[in-house]
Amino acid sequence: MKAARLYGSQDLRVVDIPEPSVSSHQVKVKVEWAGICGSDLHEFSHGPSADPHPLTGQLPPITLGHEFSGTIVELADDVTNLKVGERVAIEPLIHCGECYACKRGHYNQCSKVGFVGLNRDGGFAEYVVVEEQMVHQLPDNVSFEEGALVEPTAVSFYAVRESQLKPGDSVAIFGAGPIGLLTLLSVKAAGATKIIVVDVSEERLKKAEELGATTTINGMDDNIALTIHELTGGGVSVAYECAGVQPTMTNAVASVKQGGQVMAIAVFAKPVSIDMGQLLFKGADVTSRLAYRHVFPEIIDMISTGRLDVKSVITSNIHIEDIVEEGFNQLFTDKKQAKILVKPYK
Amino acid sequence: MKAARLYGSQDLRVVDIPEPSVSSHQVKVKVEWAGICGSDLHEFSHGPSADPHPLTGQLPPITLGHEFSGTIVELADDVTNLKVGERVAIEPLIHCGECYACKRGHYNQCSKVGFVGLNRDGGFAEYVVVEEQMVHQLPDNVSFEEGALVEPTAVSFYAVRESQLKPGDSVAIFGAGPIGLLTLLSVKAAGATKIIVVDVSEERLKKAEELGATTTINGMDDNIALTIHELTGGGVSVAYECAGVQPTMTNAVASVKQGGQVMAIAVFAKPVSIDMGQLLFKGADVTSRLAYRHVFPEIIDMISTGRLDVKSVITSNIHIEDIVEEGFNQLFTDKKQAKILVKPYK
Ligand SMILES: [Zn+2]
Ligand SMILES: [Zn+2]
Repeated sequence: MKAARLYGSQDLRVVDIPEPSVSSHQVKVKVEWAGICGSDLHEFSHGPSADPHPLTGQLPPITLGHEFSGTIVELADDVTNLKVGERVAIEPLIHCGECYACKRGHYNQCSKVGFVGLNRDGGFAEYVVVEEQMVHQLPDNVSFEEGALVEPTAVSFYAVRESQLKPGDSVAIFGAGPIGLLTLLSVKAAGATKIIVVDVSEERLKKAEELGATTTINGMDDNIALTIHELTGGGVSVAYECAGVQPTMTNAVASVKQGGQVMAIAVFAKPVSIDMGQLLFKGADVTSRLAYRHVFPEIIDMISTGRLDVKSVITSNIHIEDIVEEGFNQLFTDKKQAKILVKPYK
Repeated sequence: MKAARLYGSQDLRVVDIPEPSVSSHQVKVKVEWAGICGSDLHEFSHGPSADPHPLTGQLPPITLGHEFSGTIVELADDVTNLKVGERVAIEPLIHCGECYACKRGHYNQCSKVGFVGLNRDGGFAEYVVVEEQMVHQLPDNVSFEEGALVEPTAVSFYAVRESQLKPGDSVAIFGAGPIGLLTLLSVKAAGATKIIVVDVSEERLKKAEELGATTTINGMDDNIALTIHELTGGGVSVAYECAGVQPTMTNAVASVKQGGQVMAIAVFAKPVSIDMGQLLFKGADVTSRLAYRHVFPEIIDMISTGRLDVKSVITSNIHIEDIVEEGFNQLFTDKKQAKILVKPYK
């Protein structure tokens, strides 16, 4: 079968490898669509870890792709509550099941947490095997494309659920890439009224307006926080940091109101400086979450009932043979691109 | 009357000034004891603001002292629910009563917040006038010395109440100055089990042990966070940052467990750098609170019922004539000193 595998930094190859086979409690999924994520770009740039992951033991090359949907084509003998032919979205978290966090059901905080598609062969391939508990059924009215978007939506949706947002509140979203746009959809579904989106790209801001931003601000403007305070009569309840750099974090802290909150969703490449005097004066919080837990069924329901129009973030559908040129390279260079989905077979 | 007034940087003078007189809704208090606070030291070093405070309009010189107790000696005609002779502790926050925060009862988040003793004449004087709602009665079994400690206790106690600490949790306290020690008493009263205190001064750590620290760690040690993880089996539930500098903040973030919290109580002189990757991986919070609200009666009850032995942080009682030499200068130079109380009359 075809698979897009990362051999080293900047070295992603589409190769032919044997189809994987199921072990105990696993299912084999024929992949329909798999999205390219910012963390795939990060892996591509920096190369895969040379150390084997503590739970998977896999060394490079690794088949990337952790945002995917497909159809169950085979079950291990001990899998009894799933059927061949079922349409599914995959929750790709790998966890130990034994640590402090896992025992409490907080599997996203597992001390050995990993991902199918980053630490073990993933969804940029015709077939993947995953544990039965990673599989979530899709209703008929949720497409495979939407199914591939459940995972990135989960990142934003979980952060929104964990934030202090209440219906009627105003929010600011820093960064209008895929995570920022999915955060926008999530806060809209959660009842946010004023939704202010900040990005340095006018093209992304245009997209944010289409998806429901009530105000957009160019990230190069002076006085972004002042503008947000004026628009909201004193600051937003929650600022979602979806960019992960110092200027956006600084503006996020400055934009929240008394008792407000900064929810950092982006992965930060470097430590950021925070003005604790502002936090103190406002009694504000800075918080963050890794991935998600226990939200895939809820998101699938939200999509199925028309509350989350996640397909609106798709900007391109490509074939696996073109994944480097039309996928990774496009995302590095073209700010109009948000989510690119990959089809692993002809 | 005698008053210790700040004229400029390093220029605190004990002078004779007229006794203040009450206006509408005010009471006149004869001060019994007034504590010296870290923010008094900061004002002393940097000098009072040259701009008049928006609510008080007062310009230097300003009589310092915002931690004080005393006896009501005079009431304005419109004060009906207090009596001359009542023993009281003073809650020195000045707020506008009209802003977003004030309307919600969040008077510590008032956009114009100030303090008696920093922005208006305070308690290092024989007499002070304060608004009737600033006054909290002391039961007979709470001494004037303890009454003077209600205000600094409120800073720590409010932060502990606002933190996610639950009885049975383990905590770390960075900094064993007066705020750190009062935080120690507060978490003990709140049911913390393991109470780990970190400070660079062995003298302060000794004091912390006397007050109930279960483990003390010298702040110059390597691997402070690692030690805390080992002692607690994975990190503390809450790290209280009572020092306000980069190394302690870095260790505080590193010391909390999955889903833990850093509560910053100290005033930070400079922005601090925070490793967002750690926050993300742990799903941890960094938060802070300014001062306190609605907790003086609870603290007085806790003292009265023997739950908070606040007098244990007093290391020296002095007379106002000696406030610079035996008060401010001692606190700048002698790490054995925690809380010094000042008597404003012979
Ligand atoms: Zn685990
Ligand atoms: Zn106010």
